[in-house]
Amino acid sequence: MIKVGVCGYGTIGQRLADGVALQKDMELIGVADVAPTLAIRALKEKGMPYNLFLSVEDYRSDFEKLNIPVSGTMEEMVQKCDIILDATNAGVGAKNKEIYSKYEKKAIFQGGEKNSVADVFFHGYANYEKGIGKQFLKLTSCNTTGLIRAVDCLDRDYGIDRVAITIVRRVADPGDYHRGLTNALQIDKAPSHQAVDLMTIMPHINATGILIHTPVTHGHIITVVATGKKKITKDMALKSFLNHDRIRVVKISDGFLGNSSFFKYARDLGNPRGDMYEIGLWEDSIVETGDDIMFAINIPQESVTIPETVDGIRAACEMQTNRLEGVAKTNEYLGIGKWK
Amino acid sequence: MIKVGVCGYGTIGQRLADGVALQKDMELIGVADVAPTLAIRALKEKGMPYNLFLSVEDYRSDFEKLNIPVSGTMEEMVQKCDIILDATNAGVGAKNKEIYSKYEKKAIFQGGEKNSVADVFFHGYANYEKGIGKQFLKLTSCNTTGLIRAVDCLDRDYGIDRVAITIVRRVADPGDYHRGLTNALQIDKAPSHQAVDLMTIMPHINATGILIHTPVTHGHIITVVATGKKKITKDMALKSFLNHDRIRVVKISDGFLGNSSFFKYARDLGNPRGDMYEIGLWEDSIVETGDDIMFAINIPQESVTIPETVDGIRAACEMQTNRLEGVAKTNEYLGIGKWK
Amino acid sequence: MIKVGVCGYGTIGQRLADGVALQKDMELIGVADVAPTLAIRALKEKGMPYNLFLSVEDYRSDFEKLNIPVSGTMEEMVQKCDIILDATNAGVGAKNKEIYSKYEKKAIFQGGEKNSVADVFFHGYANYEKGIGKQFLKLTSCNTTGLIRAVDCLDRDYGIDRVAITIVRRVADPGDYHRGLTNALQIDKAPSHQAVDLMTIMPHINATGILIHTPVTHGHIITVVATGKKKITKDMALKSFLNHDRIRVVKISDGFLGNSSFFKYARDLGNPRGDMYEIGLWEDSIVETGDDIMFAINIPQESVTIPETVDGIRAACEMQTNRLEGVAKTNEYLGIGKWK
Amino acid sequence: MIKVGVCGYGTIGQRLADGVALQKDMELIGVADVAPTLAIRALKEKGMPYNLFLSVEDYRSDFEKLNIPVSGTMEEMVQKCDIILDATNAGVGAKNKEIYSKYEKKAIFQGGEKNSVADVFFHGYANYEKGIGKQFLKLTSCNTTGLIRAVDCLDRDYGIDRVAITIVRRVADPGDYHRGLTNALQIDKAPSHQAVDLMTIMPHINATGILIHTPVTHGHIITVVATGKKKITKDMALKSFLNHDRIRVVKISDGFLGNSSFFKYARDLGNPRGDMYEIGLWEDSIVETGDDIMFAINIPQESVTIPETVDGIRAACEMQTNRLEGVAKTNEYLGIGKWK
Repeated sequence: MIKVGVCGYGTIGQRLADGVALQKDMELIGVADVAPTLAIRALKEKGMPYNLFLSVEDYRSDFEKLNIPVSGTMEEMVQKCDIILDATNAGVGAKNKEIYSKYEKKAIFQGGEKNSVADVFFHGYANYEKGIGKQFLKLTSCNTTGLIRAVDCLDRDYGIDRVAITIVRRVADPGDYHRGLTNALQIDKAPSHQAVDLMTIMPHINATGILIHTPVTHGHIITVVATGKKKITKDMALKSFLNHDRIRVVKISDGFLGNSSFFKYARDLGNPRGDMYEIGLWEDSIVETGDDIMFAINIPQESVTIPETVDGIRAACEMQTNRLEGVAKTNEYLGIGKWK
Repeated sequence: MIKVGVCGYGTIGQRLADGVALQKDMELIGVADVAPTLAIRALKEKGMPYNLFLSVEDYRSDFEKLNIPVSGTMEEMVQKCDIILDATNAGVGAKNKEIYSKYEKKAIFQGGEKNSVADVFFHGYANYEKGIGKQFLKLTSCNTTGLIRAVDCLDRDYGIDRVAITIVRRVADPGDYHRGLTNALQIDKAPSHQAVDLMTIMPHINATGILIHTPVTHGHIITVVATGKKKITKDMALKSFLNHDRIRVVKISDGFLGNSSFFKYARDLGNPRGDMYEIGLWEDSIVETGDDIMFAINIPQESVTIPETVDGIRAACEMQTNRLEGVAKTNEYLGIGKWK
Repeated sequence: MIKVGVCGYGTIGQRLADGVALQKDMELIGVADVAPTLAIRALKEKGMPYNLFLSVEDYRSDFEKLNIPVSGTMEEMVQKCDIILDATNAGVGAKNKEIYSKYEKKAIFQGGEKNSVADVFFHGYANYEKGIGKQFLKLTSCNTTGLIRAVDCLDRDYGIDRVAITIVRRVADPGDYHRGLTNALQIDKAPSHQAVDLMTIMPHINATGILIHTPVTHGHIITVVATGKKKITKDMALKSFLNHDRIRVVKISDGFLGNSSFFKYARDLGNPRGDMYEIGLWEDSIVETGDDIMFAINIPQESVTIPETVDGIRAACEMQTNRLEGVAKTNEYLGIGKWK
Repeated sequence: MIKVGVCGYGTIGQRLADGVALQKDMELIGVADVAPTLAIRALKEKGMPYNLFLSVEDYRSDFEKLNIPVSGTMEEMVQKCDIILDATNAGVGAKNKEIYSKYEKKAIFQGGEKNSVADVFFHGYANYEKGIGKQFLKLTSCNTTGLIRAVDCLDRDYGIDRVAITIVRRVADPGDYHRGLTNALQIDKAPSHQAVDLMTIMPHINATGILIHTPVTHGHIITVVATGKKKITKDMALKSFLNHDRIRVVKISDGFLGNSSFFKYARDLGNPRGDMYEIGLWEDSIVETGDDIMFAINIPQESVTIPETVDGIRAACEMQTNRLEGVAKTNEYLGIGKWK
């Protein structure tokens, strides 16, 4: 049983903890955070299914006033773990790394940290082998994680020469008030970091992209224009996508009209928090033009990186040293692919 | 065991089915709908926890193609039930009533139907007694249901003379594309129907109100200016609200910054679909002016009417003939108030 | 001819400059700003109808590179003026005051500054007399300015005892990216500052209120529950509103469905920037309950304070020492009331 | 002087009327509409700068009650015109065509009508010659009009083989309540009609595209991935765009952060209604990948088709029989390119 801790119990940290708790070959030692946020208050109301550790001492008296049980300090949690999933705010992870290093623990950082924080920039499907046995991994960001799923499966099946992506990005998560956009589409200087990141993970592919922020909270949509080494038809692409466990192929004509349909569907499925681990791919968005193939995917930003992060534990801790065995075990315990 | 069926498996119907399934003294016979919507597809993916009946024959071949098991027709479902919860689109319920009448079944209609469809316009807390033994009830709409919870508890404790409400209404639910509003606040002719409905349920109170539609999906916010028969102080109001099982008193300073905080919190709690049965009431919104008291409540529009509808089953079927016993049983099985 | 300068050429500053330029008894000396913002670039593209002065030296080379003519420093502009309208960011005005004081100039600050910055907290209709001859005025904020128009006219006609307001606030202006809200309604701790400010201007009235932020950009909507010293009927209220030059009474049934209808209408009128100086008041929102009267108004946040600020120039510079003569002159030059 | 009438005084019709009124070689005979909409009420408040004709008799008494002067029937207006610009709701134009035919008048229909309504599907820059002397033109829709400007100029300069576009579409105009989307991105079945329409106008180019609806009101953003017949570099593309009078090249770093920046800028310019005739093109969005070039443009949906429609008058009425002379005359009278 690999012992896992989660630092930072926010949007991603909560979901990492839930995901690890489902792995039958891992033990969740606990979660660490700073202050009695709504997420911590909800943990308390649920009866503390996870042990809670304090990252700093500043708000200890608040936890006491609220009768929220605390199991120790974050540093104490780290000592009990084999590996820590760091889901703290961007920049904090680099600082926490000192503690992980002090106790010679492994760690996986989320996409907000700089690449230099880790030994390898990791994606479960695209470069699992590179993560094997490494001490520090950094996961790709939510958009890059989902994008690479789709590009990697086409690339393995047919060979991809280049991609040009348009990211239609949600600006905030449900419950966010500290960031937002109102009645505006905002554009970033091109190329988008996701295109650059894709090239870091898959250096044989040429990629560029434009990112547009939109005032919604449920799911990014990415359109991909991919040029294969040889022509990829719609049927060829569809076959690859249907074979991928972490891609859910849907149709607009079945009622999946946009990004919020996935959120609604996951809620109706009874998935905790209305989360979905798979990216969505619209079958009726796949079109060909000349030698290019174009399609659109949906990225559930809050939960999409959870499976690849769990893959990262498997690779870093050498639980499985074979890529497909590693991701298959993650999928099994997360219930991914059951719907097929 | 009272046998219950649900007609219409949409936003409300799904939640009614879930709510009834939790009642240990009720049996959910099944749900009826028309076409293989996303909600029905999710039911299939979940393994058909509820029996499905067809309201019309038009799409039967689609259900067959999708291998969705069908247990019979809606009319067959009705015959197996003691009472039907009708959550069909506005206007359909009036037509369905003929079938319920034909088999001498009881039924509860949702807020979209005309009052004339039912023997009594019902609210679990405010007029439970009027529903006892009746054949046809119509439930108050989501806003009116939540509003009356707050006004009724003040009225029972201190006496209310009049209220003036401002409803800041969400225009769509997550996953809706058929209705919406973009960068606009829309106002309805005053007085709002919720104020009129409140007076129907509580005829001794004078009420008026203005409704403004806003482009959001999570939770209506209502501000209430209430004039007591005698002066009601902030402390008096707070005491009443804290005693009510279906009112969750929160503070902005604790992180409940708006309507989407409740949605986030319910997701973090692990509540199915991120639903919440309680209305929210901000303690730091309660203010006095002269003899008036003013405060703001949050209405989780998708789920707020579920408890009062279950109360309606209890009243109509004479499962409990005492108001407080009836609502307490509903609360117990729905887990309401456990958090206190 | 009173000589006027405008410090800060942002959303409010641009409109103040345009408003002053329309006054036949005032001369606009120029506008001062810091950097070549879009507003300054537009001024350049229009051919520099106003002289531009630099508030700081930091970006002077940028102005030169862009060939934007600069007429001098802000301090030089101040010396040429009788009065300065300070529309800088909150906090900067207090600092600028030192310069205005140094040259013994009058100034009017906008709502973002603290009340202590000025000798009098000013509203053209409600307390014009208090501003006469004063050196430093601070204008009420956009919501308070519009709200007081409506309350003041009822109060002068019939006497108002107390008001309870609900402000449904837009969170950003068109073109804003630095602030915004996405799919959320955010609530502020009550009472809202607008209610408190109203009591500062009209101390004989008891006021409270709740403010809710909504993700839209065109116009705040405020609902007002007003209790008269004697009962005010809908007809009485309507008569007062129709007599007020800065209140535009409209009907939902005529097509004024919400806040963005006013914006559309002002664009269709050909008003510069699609601005409107009048608040909107929906005739079909006026309702009575007991002795209270309730109604809804629309506040065009970008332009509503312009007339009252011009009134402030008239009062401070003793151009008119009679309230009604002062506001009438402002109205005449701004074209307010022509539509009647 | 070519005599022009406008049928339908809505969002597009108003702007067509304004645009024609600016052409010194055209005379605006009047505008025709059905009911006293807000646009008509604004026309009245402005003092009836245009003659108004009635398309139907249904609301004549309403016009009389409101004292809105009516100059006759739409059919009477048609008889006085050489050419009619039909900006009625989709489908009505086809019916109106019978009247235009009856009096042997020319007409230009907007993008909502079917292509079959017209002799030629027209774009001022791309196929001016095809419109010369024709009786019935249909203009490209707003997105297609703007898109073709950018693709046509690259194609004329360097040759384009194929394009793949992603349209991030605004769902409603300011002031719309009858359509909208709330917190959702909606996707259409691919390929988008704009890609198909581009191929109709420019049959030598292969095009496809995906369209995503977003809940905003100011300006569509389109990303274009274009493959040249030979490699087009960023510098080559930029040179073409800078030479085009109806393309406004801007930089994110100058403050044009997104679609609403153009709207704000046009308001600050003092453009009537805050309109802009040019599409925007972000210099810092232009990126290369392999042999492809990618860039993003902004489409001001309310006003972008006005210049090309005026071009259509010039072509159909043979006012200029040379493409560049035709569009140059339109640009001159509309003030396009003055800012360069």
